[in-house]
Amino acid sequence: MAKSDTAAVPVKGSKLMVIGGASLVGSATVDEMLARGAAEVTIFDNLSFGGRPNIAHLEGNPKVKMVQGDILKLHQLLRAAENMDGVVHLAAFMTLNFDRDPWGGIDVNIRGVQNVLEACRANKVRKLVFASSNAVYGYGPGVKGDLVENTPFHAAGAPPAAILYGSSKIMGEQLCRDAHRKWGQDYVILRYSTVYGERQHYRAANALYIVETHDAIKRGERPKVIGDGSETKHFVYVGDLACANCMALEAATTDVAVNTSGPAPITTLELVNLVAELSGRPELKAELVEPDPTKVRLTSGGAFEIVHRAAKDAIGWEPQVSMREGLSRLLAWRDASLKQAAE
Amino acid sequence: MAKSDTAAVPVKGSKLMVIGGASLVGSATVDEMLARGAAEVTIFDNLSFGGRPNIAHLEGNPKVKMVQGDILKLHQLLRAAENMDGVVHLAAFMTLNFDRDPWGGIDVNIRGVQNVLEACRANKVRKLVFASSNAVYGYGPGVKGDLVENTPFHAAGAPPAAILYGSSKIMGEQLCRDAHRKWGQDYVILRYSTVYGERQHYRAANALYIVETHDAIKRGERPKVIGDGSETKHFVYVGDLACANCMALEAATTDVAVNTSGPAPITTLELVNLVAELSGRPELKAELVEPDPTKVRLTSGGAFEIVHRAAKDAIGWEPQVSMREGLSRLLAWRDASLKQAAE
Repeated sequence: MAKSDTAAVPVKGSKLMVIGGASLVGSATVDEMLARGAAEVTIFDNLSFGGRPNIAHLEGNPKVKMVQGDILKLHQLLRAAENMDGVVHLAAFMTLNFDRDPWGGIDVNIRGVQNVLEACRANKVRKLVFASSNAVYGYGPGVKGDLVENTPFHAAGAPPAAILYGSSKIMGEQLCRDAHRKWGQDYVILRYSTVYGERQHYRAANALYIVETHDAIKRGERPKVIGDGSETKHFVYVGDLACANCMALEAATTDVAVNTSGPAPITTLELVNLVAELSGRPELKAELVEPDPTKVRLTSGGAFEIVHRAAKDAIGWEPQVSMREGLSRLLAWRDASLKQAAE
Repeated sequence: MAKSDTAAVPVKGSKLMVIGGASLVGSATVDEMLARGAAEVTIFDNLSFGGRPNIAHLEGNPKVKMVQGDILKLHQLLRAAENMDGVVHLAAFMTLNFDRDPWGGIDVNIRGVQNVLEACRANKVRKLVFASSNAVYGYGPGVKGDLVENTPFHAAGAPPAAILYGSSKIMGEQLCRDAHRKWGQDYVILRYSTVYGERQHYRAANALYIVETHDAIKRGERPKVIGDGSETKHFVYVGDLACANCMALEAATTDVAVNTSGPAPITTLELVNLVAELSGRPELKAELVEPDPTKVRLTSGGAFEIVHRAAKDAIGWEPQVSMREGLSRLLAWRDASLKQAAE
């Protein structure tokens, strides 16, 4: 990791763009930037996964500019990135979408990063924050123990879409490194673990457990757990990631990739029972069921922990919100949204 | 690994296409197919890396058809793949070209594979052989010991272009797996180790040692070795790979990826001194020099061996040609070519 005075972009007073800004993490990041006094925040999003409700609360805010654009159209990015001090790039296909449309996933997750880097180069954007993933460590039985930044990519035993997603993130990271070497592009890569929080969507294979469990409990049913529920998950609260994105812009650090995970891992069984408890129905204990072979599920073999120590050193970040606290917020948000929708 | 009667495509009497057929491995594969009695062999190549001299000896052969085409133009591939029983896909960017042009590398190594798979699907091509690489195990100090088919991808410490190349091959492999799952495409992936042999070119970072050493010795100079020469290389003779491609078509095996490496690894120092010996100048011992930081060189940390046992089980293949024998053939070919060029 390198430090450079020019790599520090204070959020306060800056013009910033969030690509994929109408997403779960994107909308929280825009909120955090505004709270920190950003001069102007551009949301660049094609809204292909919805997203409009995530940014409805920002409508009419004079500091927020919405650009409905496509990262595969370089001219749109080039124009949107004009006069930007910093860019946070979040737009990506995840595993489930890679399974449905590998061509789209490759375009968005690889060519998309190249286009973003090109727009940053052409517009002399001082700092890029790129959202990578703990998927760069892979899936399957090989993934166990402490996952640190130089842990290799394990592919054996994982479905093609998961490996395609993980390698697309590896390539995105390397394109950033290449840009730093070739034209000095300052960047920080954050390897998100599984995100959850308010405005949770249904597109991420891992976070589905939370919303599916909550839905089952709402119906008075016991939540289903696929397999024996012993596999590890390591979530991170969306608000913590919004802070990490801002801190990565503000840090003098460049040319580095660090993990951003929550305080501690949890097993699927613990998670599901915690959701039941927080939903006020602790008696609805998880029911173990056999996996459906037609569905893409990401199972991990051993117990693992995504270590976030390097993020503290690089950008001063560590997670603040416990799983219990974050889940309470998510469930409260879902209850309020469902109630509002029913009215 | 699965076996299927329909996955066996005998070379004898079949119509076959070699994509990248004017390359080092491609031209040897076409020769091997003709020797095994193929009814017709189509060479599909854009000749962007030269290649015309590699197939000059095939000109006028009624069983050989040359299509100067681009794998990024799907309509060209679709037409060329019509009525083919089997396809061998070799066209790719390697590390040095990835460094110069990452956009081209991503197009050719990922979208190119998707186009090839799509052409196979549309034309009901029974079997695809895809040339992957031991680059799927990565580079740098993490790579050591026995490299077997489920060894993870090590990236830490390697240059961006090398990691981009390795991950592009991982993705190419997964696209084949995905095609098998989605429409039953039969395929065998061969993970080539560093290829050498007659018609050696100058584009592969690792094989450069052989030709650069030979050139130095021709000039009466001591060959240069970067670093201490202790790092491992594991080459494979081009004729052995030509056989592997044919055997992969002929095997009833499908949905598998196996290593195809030479009989044994060698250190750089041993290699360079062997070239000097075979060139009749054993007294020109290697000179150790400091690495040039501006050049992409792939250094490996530990001693490793690319284990090819699984290839024997899957397709009955094992390497036949020793490093000493293969190098003798390569050097004899170079001497003859240089002599011819000088006349």
